[in-house]
Amino acid sequence: MAVYTEVSDEALTAFLSAYEIGRLLSFKGIAEGVENTNFFLHTTAGSYILTLYEKRVREDDLPFFLNLMEHLAARGLACPQPIRNRDGSALGRLCGRPAVIVSFLEGVSVKRPGVHHCTELGRALAGLHAAGRDFGMRRDNNLSVEAWEPLFRAAAPRADEVAAGLTARVRDDLSVLEAGWPRGLPSGVIHADLFTDNVFFIGDDLSGLIDFYFACTDAFAYDLAICLNAWCFDAEGKFHRDMGEALIAGYESVRPLEHAEVAALPILCRGAALRFMLTRLVDWLNVPPGALVQPKDPLEYDRRLTFHRTATQARDYGRAG
Amino acid sequence: MAVYTEVSDEALTAFLSAYEIGRLLSFKGIAEGVENTNFFLHTTAGSYILTLYEKRVREDDLPFFLNLMEHLAARGLACPQPIRNRDGSALGRLCGRPAVIVSFLEGVSVKRPGVHHCTELGRALAGLHAAGRDFGMRRDNNLSVEAWEPLFRAAAPRADEVAAGLTARVRDDLSVLEAGWPRGLPSGVIHADLFTDNVFFIGDDLSGLIDFYFACTDAFAYDLAICLNAWCFDAEGKFHRDMGEALIAGYESVRPLEHAEVAALPILCRGAALRFMLTRLVDWLNVPPGALVQPKDPLEYDRRLTFHRTATQARDYGRAG
Repeated sequence: MAVYTEVSDEALTAFLSAYEIGRLLSFKGIAEGVENTNFFLHTTAGSYILTLYEKRVREDDLPFFLNLMEHLAARGLACPQPIRNRDGSALGRLCGRPAVIVSFLEGVSVKRPGVHHCTELGRALAGLHAAGRDFGMRRDNNLSVEAWEPLFRAAAPRADEVAAGLTARVRDDLSVLEAGWPRGLPSGVIHADLFTDNVFFIGDDLSGLIDFYFACTDAFAYDLAICLNAWCFDAEGKFHRDMGEALIAGYESVRPLEHAEVAALPILCRGAALRFMLTRLVDWLNVPPGALVQPKDPLEYDRRLTFHRTATQARDYGRAG
Repeated sequence: MAVYTEVSDEALTAFLSAYEIGRLLSFKGIAEGVENTNFFLHTTAGSYILTLYEKRVREDDLPFFLNLMEHLAARGLACPQPIRNRDGSALGRLCGRPAVIVSFLEGVSVKRPGVHHCTELGRALAGLHAAGRDFGMRRDNNLSVEAWEPLFRAAAPRADEVAAGLTARVRDDLSVLEAGWPRGLPSGVIHADLFTDNVFFIGDDLSGLIDFYFACTDAFAYDLAICLNAWCFDAEGKFHRDMGEALIAGYESVRPLEHAEVAALPILCRGAALRFMLTRLVDWLNVPPGALVQPKDPLEYDRRLTFHRTATQARDYGRAG
């Protein structure tokens, strides 16, 4: 949670003069952002989020993310819609940072999702995959299987300080995943980071998806595997089969999985868990002094991996049939 | 800037069930709070701020602050209005903290105020003093002249590490202020912390005052002296007489100062500067490890004191006549 860049009223007013979104009414830094600085912006035309991109987002990737949100919103997906300025550009510059205004999305994220939330999420995820089908841009997933060995190399010398035996476990995971990672599955735009923070609900209804800054081109079923990891385990690391079942069934009510995707689900889940374990492990071992953000615990994903290592079939995740 | 206490969607929903403010639409932690944790809250009934009071606010003082805001809002002052729950209470409890919902106030605070802002501020400050005249509660100013010597004692052993000669300068200030502090000036409710962050503007118009958690019963002219310090010096510590003139004239357009208040203005300004220098100095020397908030520089107020030590008349601050 952090505002990394302070924006003065004068700098903001100058920035807003390039947009046609009415008169500034209020402006507050939001604590939730981890990678970027976000402000709540209210004008006579409506509510918006102003995002300043900090170092972790590559500026070259921004056109992909912004065009994608615009594409998805145009196809009816509830997601933030970038606002173009008078020159027709969605990407501006403020306080030395790339900056974007997007429409504000109502909704609240759930900390402890239930079965019903998983059904809603599954439907929305399949809706996102469908809405992205005809998106013309491509962005490789730079945090997929090829990235994991180099990522682990950065953390390996101190990994066993974090948990006894972690190095050996990761080495085993890597050899299984690198040998068996599925290729040629149905692919397209995936969100790749659809954790509970990035999904909004109003009451029982899913109201929107946010934070597309890990979106990329990859297997649809891998996105589902990320969600199974992020939504269907409780705080103690126990997998809830009924939630997995709801998530998969919700997904398949919109887009049925192909046979190859069903078969690949266990290894995709194991890979997704390793991906988040590794990036968290690297962050955990490299907290900068004075950091504003508390790193996330990599061991949450080490515990999930214990489950994935013994799961052999999609049925273990709640896939019927 | 910080969210000290995380509030889950479940805890919030349970808390809101005691209020009649419609259905929850969104909820975001705000980065600006220094003393408390603040959330932006949007429901089908409108926009609100939810505040959780952290350790620095004494729970016994909360009825004074909340009743005061209610009193001032009822008299037309643009300030946050506490929302009472179904039991008629404005003060609730959430995540182990005293918690309050207040109406959301539109507006943006200015980082570098100009002459016009000072005029507006002066008018609003006098309006606040007038609106508080018939408020029935009393709260002593526990950061007035009697508190400064004990405050300095806590910082004195290391004060000269912060600036050469600081101890000697403060000792001089203290002896002058303790000997000559004015008594019997017109008194009532003062804000006592009306820095630029706590004053909102929409365009050129002042739209409201916030953050009444230092409000107390003290001399009206001392509140004006706090504002002269907070608004009329630039980043380099130079006093701008035209801004002081605008602030005082704006104030007197609503409530003319009495002769004794005019005469006391220089010593009140010196005292106000010392008060903020001392609390900042104590915070500066006692930053807890892992602090989320950057302490404010006490030397900004040491520089202001250089000006106040030579100012002898209200005219030096821009008071005409």
